[in-house]
Amino acid sequence: MLSSPRIPERNVTDPGRRRLLGGAIGTFAIGLGGFSQTALAQTVAATGTPVPASKPLPQYTAWKEADALIVHSSNTLETRRSAYGSGVITPADRLFVRNNVPPPDPSIVADPDAWTVAIEGVKNPRSLSVAELKGMGLETTAAVLQCSGNGRGFFPSKPSGTPWTVGAAGCVIWSGVPVRSLAQALGGPVEGVVYMTGTGGEAIPQGVDPKSVLVERSVPIKAMEDALLAWEMNGEPVPLAHGGPLRLVVPGYSGVNNIKYIKRLAFTPKQSDARIMESRYRMTPPGEKGNPNQASIWEMGVKSWITSPGTDGEQMKAGRHMIEGVAFGGTNAVKSVEVSVDGGRTWQEARLVGPDLGRFAWRQFALPVDLRPGSYVLASRATDVNGKVQDELRIDNSAGYNNTSWRDHALPVMVA
Amino acid sequence: MLSSPRIPERNVTDPGRRRLLGGAIGTFAIGLGGFSQTALAQTVAATGTPVPASKPLPQYTAWKEADALIVHSSNTLETRRSAYGSGVITPADRLFVRNNVPPPDPSIVADPDAWTVAIEGVKNPRSLSVAELKGMGLETTAAVLQCSGNGRGFFPSKPSGTPWTVGAAGCVIWSGVPVRSLAQALGGPVEGVVYMTGTGGEAIPQGVDPKSVLVERSVPIKAMEDALLAWEMNGEPVPLAHGGPLRLVVPGYSGVNNIKYIKRLAFTPKQSDARIMESRYRMTPPGEKGNPNQASIWEMGVKSWITSPGTDGEQMKAGRHMIEGVAFGGTNAVKSVEVSVDGGRTWQEARLVGPDLGRFAWRQFALPVDLRPGSYVLASRATDVNGKVQDELRIDNSAGYNNTSWRDHALPVMVA
Repeated sequence: MLSSPRIPERNVTDPGRRRLLGGAIGTFAIGLGGFSQTALAQTVAATGTPVPASKPLPQYTAWKEADALIVHSSNTLETRRSAYGSGVITPADRLFVRNNVPPPDPSIVADPDAWTVAIEGVKNPRSLSVAELKGMGLETTAAVLQCSGNGRGFFPSKPSGTPWTVGAAGCVIWSGVPVRSLAQALGGPVEGVVYMTGTGGEAIPQGVDPKSVLVERSVPIKAMEDALLAWEMNGEPVPLAHGGPLRLVVPGYSGVNNIKYIKRLAFTPKQSDARIMESRYRMTPPGEKGNPNQASIWEMGVKSWITSPGTDGEQMKAGRHMIEGVAFGGTNAVKSVEVSVDGGRTWQEARLVGPDLGRFAWRQFALPVDLRPGSYVLASRATDVNGKVQDELRIDNSAGYNNTSWRDHALPVMVA
Repeated sequence: MLSSPRIPERNVTDPGRRRLLGGAIGTFAIGLGGFSQTALAQTVAATGTPVPASKPLPQYTAWKEADALIVHSSNTLETRRSAYGSGVITPADRLFVRNNVPPPDPSIVADPDAWTVAIEGVKNPRSLSVAELKGMGLETTAAVLQCSGNGRGFFPSKPSGTPWTVGAAGCVIWSGVPVRSLAQALGGPVEGVVYMTGTGGEAIPQGVDPKSVLVERSVPIKAMEDALLAWEMNGEPVPLAHGGPLRLVVPGYSGVNNIKYIKRLAFTPKQSDARIMESRYRMTPPGEKGNPNQASIWEMGVKSWITSPGTDGEQMKAGRHMIEGVAFGGTNAVKSVEVSVDGGRTWQEARLVGPDLGRFAWRQFALPVDLRPGSYVLASRATDVNGKVQDELRIDNSAGYNNTSWRDHALPVMVA
């Protein structure tokens, strides 16, 4: 649906382009993903640009900032591009939510210290409570958390799944015990292990094959070096919506590998045979079925997008503007970011702003530009410390994963 | 009231020691500062240790996390020691509040971009809106924000003012335009200026001498190098409670110098003659009156305190515990932190944890200790990069400012 470079267009029936351009106000009937909205009531953001309304916040996220989020479903909340602001950390109340299955009962976060996790595949396997984990080590890591499907909304093939554009991502600060310290305290991993496998604490409904809903993911064991079992996010106990009381954090790896409500952490010789590992979250060629021979969705690629201006098709005043955005490199730090105002024909190097929170965090970038009246297509392109430049084009795949295309993430604006 | 090293005691009538020890539950009549509480209803924190209840949150802070805060008055909210957690950034909903006068009407944050500030004492003075400032530069700085009276509750002289213990401080991330860029864009400061003077936008009640309530502070002009006019805090527009729509941030300087709702920023040859500058916030010897010859409350000293365990007199189980805390050095980075479990007789070096957010931010520290049954007095002592060691003793002064004493901040605990 989105040719490159994109130009402002009006297309309210396309979930990936639900932003409405040009100041029109009205109501529309729209069918969207797994649920229906009979009326798309519009709200007007501070910029004066209409933005799509969304469903009410689900109960377990009622503490979040409704205006900053697009509620796609009870399990999928997206941060608006305009809500990222200029800071380096995404506040919890603006952070996206994506659950594969509904979260467990909120009672599990009433006494976080009582939650237990079984550690297996080590010489001395045992269960440990969060209270015990807190005495075993402490590390704090800033890391980008991004759903593998972030950017799916830009795929012209309209893959099934939430049509996220840029908002299924955030940069947050986790505190917890390093998995490497934990493994060492329990005698180290046993011989022959290749993967670190985490199992979520979601309830398995009766009458279904557990493997079809079990949230269990395996990542290469090298990821253990940076992984945490985290009980705190952005300075507060991890909320239920984000995997509290305890979440496996695998910095640099896509969101799905960061197991929420973790109840089992195992060092294993084989990958999990749960469906979410075996056939889903694979780079499956269009038209094919997922299988273990296809690449699993693990490390994130180098990527960036513009956050200010924050609205597709935004009407801006002529004059000086600060183009701002975020850039990250998965497990590698970002070295530089370029910005284009002409859809990628010419580029200028942006300035990296603010504190560097480490290689797993994103960097803010900024470039002041003087814009005269006209149409512009703003784009950003990051390069990591290994010299890897952000892709121009997405890699097509059946589920719309790993979209790092700078062209897809470009933002048309109008200056008057 | 607090001899050093302190030992657990029960003293519910002392505002600086309102924590209740030993698991007793009950209600008490208590007079506190400028208002009275007829009953001190207690709540029980997750640790099981009773903590003092506080007044309801004032309306303009209703979005904050009540359980994390002690409400001393409508203008003074303190973060509980136990609410700091293990992260490096203090979430906005747990951050202390201290206003010298009531905040302006909330309507001023409805459209932050429309707020204007007058820049004076530059070659080309003018008023600028926040929207204009956003095009003039962007910097993000993590900095400790601390009320000058933090630790006043430990002064045996019971100075007037809020009896803060450790909770009138936080580490937050500010985004805004660097004052040095702004000054440069307006031709630079005029000849002969010595101070940077900020004026707050609080309403001046009719019939009072404006100088007696005006929130106007001057700091040495060198502070301009790191100062921001900030419109964002922790990734969101600065809330009214924290000085939104626009706050002067002077990293490394006590909270009072970080002017909220700033309406005028002037480069001046003399200090402001407002009372808050001329005679208040001075290191005034006990029994004397404040005057401009006494040192003004500007740069913060090197300081640290323990945040976990987080409750004075906490009953802990024997075994392994992680002693955690925060340490900062004002305008200088922290080099190291030592921890004592015997009230300062012996010290062990703690580990600095997590990302270093720059010299104005605090560092988290952690030290695992094995505690056998008995009484302990936990203390921490920071050293900055210049070798300045945190003071053992407070410097007495009439208003209870600048308490950096490690002895005062020590924490008695009981291990059973």
